[in-house]
Amino acid sequence: MADYQAPLRDMRFVLNEVFEVDQLWASIPRLAEAVDVDTADAILEEAGKIAAGSLAPLNREADEAGCQWQDGEVSTPEGFKEVYQLLAEGGWMGLGGNPEYGGMGMPKMLVAQFEEMMQAACMAFGLSPMLNAGACVSLDYHASEALKQKYLPNMYAGTWAGAMDLTEPHAGTDLGIIRTKAEPNDDGSYNVTGTKIFITWGEHDMAENIIHLVLAKLPDAPAGPKGISLFLVPKILVNDDGSLGERNAVTCGSIEKKMGIKASATCVMNFDGAKGWLVGELNKGLACMFTMMNYERVGVGIQGLGAAEASYQSAVAYAKERLQSRSPAGKVQPEKAADPIIVHPDVRRMLMIQRAYNEAGRAFSTYAARWLDISKYSDDDAQRTKAENMVALLTPVVKAFITDKALESAIHGQQVFGGHGYIREWGQEQLVRDIRITQIYEGTNGIQAMDLMGRKTVMNGGEFVREYIAEIEAFIAENKSTAAAEFAMALSDQLANLQQVTDAVIAKATAGNKHAIGAAAVDYLHLFGFVSYAYMWAKMAAVAGAKLDGPDADFYSAKLTTARFFYQRLLPQTRALSEQILAGGDSMMALADHQF
Amino acid sequence: MADYQAPLRDMRFVLNEVFEVDQLWASIPRLAEAVDVDTADAILEEAGKIAAGSLAPLNREADEAGCQWQDGEVSTPEGFKEVYQLLAEGGWMGLGGNPEYGGMGMPKMLVAQFEEMMQAACMAFGLSPMLNAGACVSLDYHASEALKQKYLPNMYAGTWAGAMDLTEPHAGTDLGIIRTKAEPNDDGSYNVTGTKIFITWGEHDMAENIIHLVLAKLPDAPAGPKGISLFLVPKILVNDDGSLGERNAVTCGSIEKKMGIKASATCVMNFDGAKGWLVGELNKGLACMFTMMNYERVGVGIQGLGAAEASYQSAVAYAKERLQSRSPAGKVQPEKAADPIIVHPDVRRMLMIQRAYNEAGRAFSTYAARWLDISKYSDDDAQRTKAENMVALLTPVVKAFITDKALESAIHGQQVFGGHGYIREWGQEQLVRDIRITQIYEGTNGIQAMDLMGRKTVMNGGEFVREYIAEIEAFIAENKSTAAAEFAMALSDQLANLQQVTDAVIAKATAGNKHAIGAAAVDYLHLFGFVSYAYMWAKMAAVAGAKLDGPDADFYSAKLTTARFFYQRLLPQTRALSEQILAGGDSMMALADHQF
Repeated sequence: MADYQAPLRDMRFVLNEVFEVDQLWASIPRLAEAVDVDTADAILEEAGKIAAGSLAPLNREADEAGCQWQDGEVSTPEGFKEVYQLLAEGGWMGLGGNPEYGGMGMPKMLVAQFEEMMQAACMAFGLSPMLNAGACVSLDYHASEALKQKYLPNMYAGTWAGAMDLTEPHAGTDLGIIRTKAEPNDDGSYNVTGTKIFITWGEHDMAENIIHLVLAKLPDAPAGPKGISLFLVPKILVNDDGSLGERNAVTCGSIEKKMGIKASATCVMNFDGAKGWLVGELNKGLACMFTMMNYERVGVGIQGLGAAEASYQSAVAYAKERLQSRSPAGKVQPEKAADPIIVHPDVRRMLMIQRAYNEAGRAFSTYAARWLDISKYSDDDAQRTKAENMVALLTPVVKAFITDKALESAIHGQQVFGGHGYIREWGQEQLVRDIRITQIYEGTNGIQAMDLMGRKTVMNGGEFVREYIAEIEAFIAENKSTAAAEFAMALSDQLANLQQVTDAVIAKATAGNKHAIGAAAVDYLHLFGFVSYAYMWAKMAAVAGAKLDGPDADFYSAKLTTARFFYQRLLPQTRALSEQILAGGDSMMALADHQF
Repeated sequence: MADYQAPLRDMRFVLNEVFEVDQLWASIPRLAEAVDVDTADAILEEAGKIAAGSLAPLNREADEAGCQWQDGEVSTPEGFKEVYQLLAEGGWMGLGGNPEYGGMGMPKMLVAQFEEMMQAACMAFGLSPMLNAGACVSLDYHASEALKQKYLPNMYAGTWAGAMDLTEPHAGTDLGIIRTKAEPNDDGSYNVTGTKIFITWGEHDMAENIIHLVLAKLPDAPAGPKGISLFLVPKILVNDDGSLGERNAVTCGSIEKKMGIKASATCVMNFDGAKGWLVGELNKGLACMFTMMNYERVGVGIQGLGAAEASYQSAVAYAKERLQSRSPAGKVQPEKAADPIIVHPDVRRMLMIQRAYNEAGRAFSTYAARWLDISKYSDDDAQRTKAENMVALLTPVVKAFITDKALESAIHGQQVFGGHGYIREWGQEQLVRDIRITQIYEGTNGIQAMDLMGRKTVMNGGEFVREYIAEIEAFIAENKSTAAAEFAMALSDQLANLQQVTDAVIAKATAGNKHAIGAAAVDYLHLFGFVSYAYMWAKMAAVAGAKLDGPDADFYSAKLTTARFFYQRLLPQTRALSEQILAGGDSMMALADHQF
């Protein structure tokens, strides 16, 4: 397997050239204070060194070794503790954190690149900083000042690690039916009792303490989702002076055997009257949780992207080295027994698909991060509202479309290796196994699609979609004489089609067809994702096309070529998706249960 | 995980109702002698019992245990030896074998169903009877009478097991560059020396002897594929009286760690001057090997199908049991905390996709087996030639399209389980890991696509494709008033489109575009596969539609509904594929190697 290298050139292209972060950051005072392009560049450089030099070399062995559970303790694979320590000491655990409590205050656009590197180097490990950051966001937004002061500094410092505890054996998607109970104590704390499953890094040996954010219900809480509250439950109780006190009644009962991300611990967590503190308001736990979830969902999209990038890098290296058969156009390396397989059109097809999806995914998640930053940091109310709408609309697409395409990308990367791709030592099969979870957790991709189609589209009469389309139309109008002009007509057609399909589903759903949203959802999310990637490729082409005569011409011409490949060989899938959506759900719903 | 049950009702539907095997078998003397519908039925019944009762229960544990290598010996997971013995004693290892040498002489259409059951129950194990059958076919067609008499009876009896040894570390797809040498001895035997890798069941403890079919080159052989010969190399030498003699110089150096089919041994085989005997003519080894490979390729398609069927059965059972959220149309089981997830449109979508692909795959592989039977058993020269053309055309599609759709099906099955699908104990993730190899071995799916597009289509000017289309057009003309009429117009459009795309690629390739075949191949194979599945669904609908008022109405109406689902929600993908193919390969080939 080729050594992973952080794709710094591509990251800088997206940040500095496509999205011109210098202008954005300078225009928002709180960001102008925290970061500039030079600082960002130094951060990228340093993160790339840690990812490639310290973390990536652990990935293969860690998958074989896995985490080990014994008597409630979880020990991590060799090297994990050291890299965790390295990240903690470098301040990386609080990279996007609130500076008031010790965070570094970096914008999500930059943090996204750091996350991609961590996930590319080792997804099982990368879950740890990702979950910690998500837990911190939730605390920062919703916890009391006292809780924030007590917990955030150590979590940003990585001394303590965050975990989120939502799922129960009978309740995953449907959190309304959870059974974990929180009973109030006189001192304002709660006793939390129940069993949570699938708790990633719920227990481990990398940090001094683990801070669980736990969904539970008060004894007299209303039934369903409106009776859920969020509690902070530390593994080890924290004294008033900040020192560690007694062990709390939180234990890890076992860890799961999984398809992939084997080096991460997926824990069954038992709370036996564990002491916890309310985060946010009573019975508003789902809202607090969703602050964290939306953050994580963008993170999960980036996970898929990172692993797909690692897959691409290995596949390219293998395709250039592996000699097998001759080019259909005649011998390319006549002195050798065969040509490198990169000469074969079908191998190129697979590599080009990886490029087309991965690079669009990087641009798209960075674009979503841009809206996250504006919604968080802008002083302009109207701009913030617009940004919030876009975050709401794009989050499920970032999570689900990037991960669906990441799996496809990694399957192609594995296929490039032929039989060697199926053997563990080459690492390609691990990437497929690892990526597969990203389509499932933090809300399955089907749930993301329901969110996009239902809450984010039908429920507001398609307003957010129209806003998004208007932005892309404005882009097209502005690029009549750039290299994006080549793609303008196709993109314009795609927008018209997206609008038409959106209207058709809204009409059906509002006319009382109860299954209209569910029957359309996943295909609609893919349609939306393809259009979004087409927008990203047009944006990248516009920038690259202006620099074809400059010093880095090979880099820019590759962007234009990959844009063409995307438009010609992948984007036509929107035709099929549209037709499928418009066909409706009758054939999907017609069978009686007993006919299955 | 639900217990696997052989889908006997569906198999009988395909055999007896869709393809009316009674008429076919009665019309071909050698088949009429060997089998009738009642015999076939009894065989299906008994095979189903072994698959569900004896083999399937081993599958999960065997995956965890894997095969163990020590000092050249491979021990198999618990229970494998016993099931192997059960199959051997029941004559199953020679089910399709030549009766002159002790085989049971059953047609491939029936054997295909047996194979599906074995693969569904445990793919890692199922490779053993499959490879044995393939090796026997190769010997039966190409070996000398003496070799056949000496080896086939024990191989059909399962006392000895067959293996095929083709790949070398530097030579997979490109067998022309193999280095294994065969030096002639005075007694007519050869000394075979070299290293083979990825040899499935190359060594194990289930049979007394292992008969390797090994590709090697004579010292003075022509370079490239025209210098390859095939040799029979037994693990233990066989005396003239048929008893076992000395150990041959064949050893298993190690076994691979793999993504899936972990309970099968994938061996590195070392031949150190091992004694072997020529099979077929010198330097015609590839032809002998392809007899076996074509047989195996249909078998690999059926592997994918079998595992996808197992995935579907589990997913349906889980979807009916798992309670989570409420139907969008209102509570279905108000007395419970939530509704079973099968009420949700997106869960149904996934299950319907599994049905649509799996059932079409079963019909399609049986249809290909029908042509294999006619090509092998018919006395009519013209019919045999037609059948050989169809076998040549359809084999790569059966191998690659069924396995590609099987992976998709199993991924959907896993997705139905949410987080539980990622945990090993439920078995769904194993099916995904296992199926993944079917897209890679016996010629990657990309190689299958090159075979279909190049050798089977462009090289004969599209003759086979026209023959196939003509058959489907005749079917449409005959079904103007059956339930297939509903699909006639769509199917007709698909045929016209397939013809047009075929002509366009042929025109481009014959005009000298060296990359035209490779650039179109995989998308073309998928286009061809979708049209073939549409044909199968129309055939199934024609039969089912006539029986909607009979005793098994639920069964037949489900067929019609699933056909509609396929036409409305999956078949539109041909639009995208066609557009992609017609866009050509320029953007695919434009990057210089260093730009990757």
